[in-house]
Amino acid sequence: MTDNASPMPLTLLGTGAMGTALGRAWLAAGHPVTVWNRTPARTAALAAEGATVASSAAAAVAANRLVIACLLDDDSLGEALAGADLTGRDLVNLTTGTPAEGRARAAWAEERGARFVDAGIMAVPPMIGSPDSGAYVFYSGSAGLFEEHRETLAVPAGTAWVGADPGFAALHDVALLSAMTGMFAGVFHAFSLVRREDIAPKEFAGLLQGWLTAMAHTVHNTADQLESEDFTKNVVSNLAMQTAGNATLLRTAQEQGVSPELLTPYMALMERLLAQGRGEEDTTGMVDLLLRQGS
Amino acid sequence: MTDNASPMPLTLLGTGAMGTALGRAWLAAGHPVTVWNRTPARTAALAAEGATVASSAAAAVAANRLVIACLLDDDSLGEALAGADLTGRDLVNLTTGTPAEGRARAAWAEERGARFVDAGIMAVPPMIGSPDSGAYVFYSGSAGLFEEHRETLAVPAGTAWVGADPGFAALHDVALLSAMTGMFAGVFHAFSLVRREDIAPKEFAGLLQGWLTAMAHTVHNTADQLESEDFTKNVVSNLAMQTAGNATLLRTAQEQGVSPELLTPYMALMERLLAQGRGEEDTTGMVDLLLRQGS
Repeated sequence: MTDNASPMPLTLLGTGAMGTALGRAWLAAGHPVTVWNRTPARTAALAAEGATVASSAAAAVAANRLVIACLLDDDSLGEALAGADLTGRDLVNLTTGTPAEGRARAAWAEERGARFVDAGIMAVPPMIGSPDSGAYVFYSGSAGLFEEHRETLAVPAGTAWVGADPGFAALHDVALLSAMTGMFAGVFHAFSLVRREDIAPKEFAGLLQGWLTAMAHTVHNTADQLESEDFTKNVVSNLAMQTAGNATLLRTAQEQGVSPELLTPYMALMERLLAQGRGEEDTTGMVDLLLRQGS
Repeated sequence: MTDNASPMPLTLLGTGAMGTALGRAWLAAGHPVTVWNRTPARTAALAAEGATVASSAAAAVAANRLVIACLLDDDSLGEALAGADLTGRDLVNLTTGTPAEGRARAAWAEERGARFVDAGIMAVPPMIGSPDSGAYVFYSGSAGLFEEHRETLAVPAGTAWVGADPGFAALHDVALLSAMTGMFAGVFHAFSLVRREDIAPKEFAGLLQGWLTAMAHTVHNTADQLESEDFTKNVVSNLAMQTAGNATLLRTAQEQGVSPELLTPYMALMERLLAQGRGEEDTTGMVDLLLRQGS
């Protein structure tokens, strides 16, 4: 049971930009924080705000039951914890990684007597610690750990529990970042199209944001189709119509002197679906092509 | 001057899915509508709702000063209007096309004594005629035409004037659709990553929509950087950091059996910018690469 009257003491491994932002939020909320960083000088900012600096990662782990890691990558985590006694510890891993790394690290931690949750941070450091920033963190793994420390974990950013599979936090994190990567590719193509014209970027940005926000709703339709396995359900503009429209996009890119390389792989998959006779479906069958090729 | 008491009569060329939706909206608002379609049978729905069917495109054009075209493509428009007398006509072109087609068609119409605006419809037919759907249409070209008929044009969908250049309506239209194409590519990659896991598509869709909506705000930052030509301005996560993050996205795709082909062209451009020593900048320099390659 947590005691609301006295904030939970915790250990923070890693004081890079993100670790420092997290540590600052916990210190501001009154949590005693013990910090360690491979490069000791980088703990100075948090030390100045009241953190205790441990001389080694093992000492930092020994100081508190709740241990939060925010390191460069999974290898760094393994190195940092190599000499630490994890027995009875609650390890929360905010280090960026893949689902498989999360799962492997969970098994590794459990073998060493620790409870483990993996986490994926949906924010950049400036968003941490301000309640209205929209920042949140995916968590998965030990439900017991998460329930016990939920209040502490909610201090720097919102919390989103995505299940007992310790790979799911990273998977959700990476899936959302991947979708964003696609959106950014589209956005840069769009800005390139208008770049040499007498069109104010800031005015164009308002239109772009409004349109992308409106079109982001279509993911619910895609989800419906995937859940029902019926890709002809609620089709607004079918694959054949959408594929025909690609020609206008490509000719416009050519007219404006813009390489279409960021859009053509998607269009090529549309053509492949069309060649499979799936013109009456939505474009959702693309998921089948992406999975078949990669597996 | 328009007379608010009596809705402006108009001619509609093209009664496909979009033309029919538009015609229905004008008829419902009391506008006398004369229609023509190359395949006459497709005018039946609007005729049943009160439209007058013309025997030829030339006859349809002769019937009203305001002529609205919504045909398959620019070639179809040229063919339809080949024998029509456009003198004194106000031609609004809702046919999908490129900026160059819009500009050429404007010159062509002016030579024939007509005023011309080109248009780009940001909607699918079911959104037309319902004020809350968010549907709107970009217009550019003759400001006089647009001002005179703004009220009539606003009946089926919102109006967005984007300037005197008759290519700008199509350019805005295509730019927004291109950005959406990129977003959809990212979305399908994301759904593919979670497809074989015990993750409900509908729950995932809610997270995806929220994240994309939040991240769509970043276009304002991009616009600021483009307007100031300073790609180090307000950098939240610089190119070097973002490029380092790509490795986790690619390894996760591999673990989940998903082809990375929809994301790799964007990542390749990031690597090229990094190789140019632009790691401290935002990714906005990608616009330079896309324009250099295409021109």
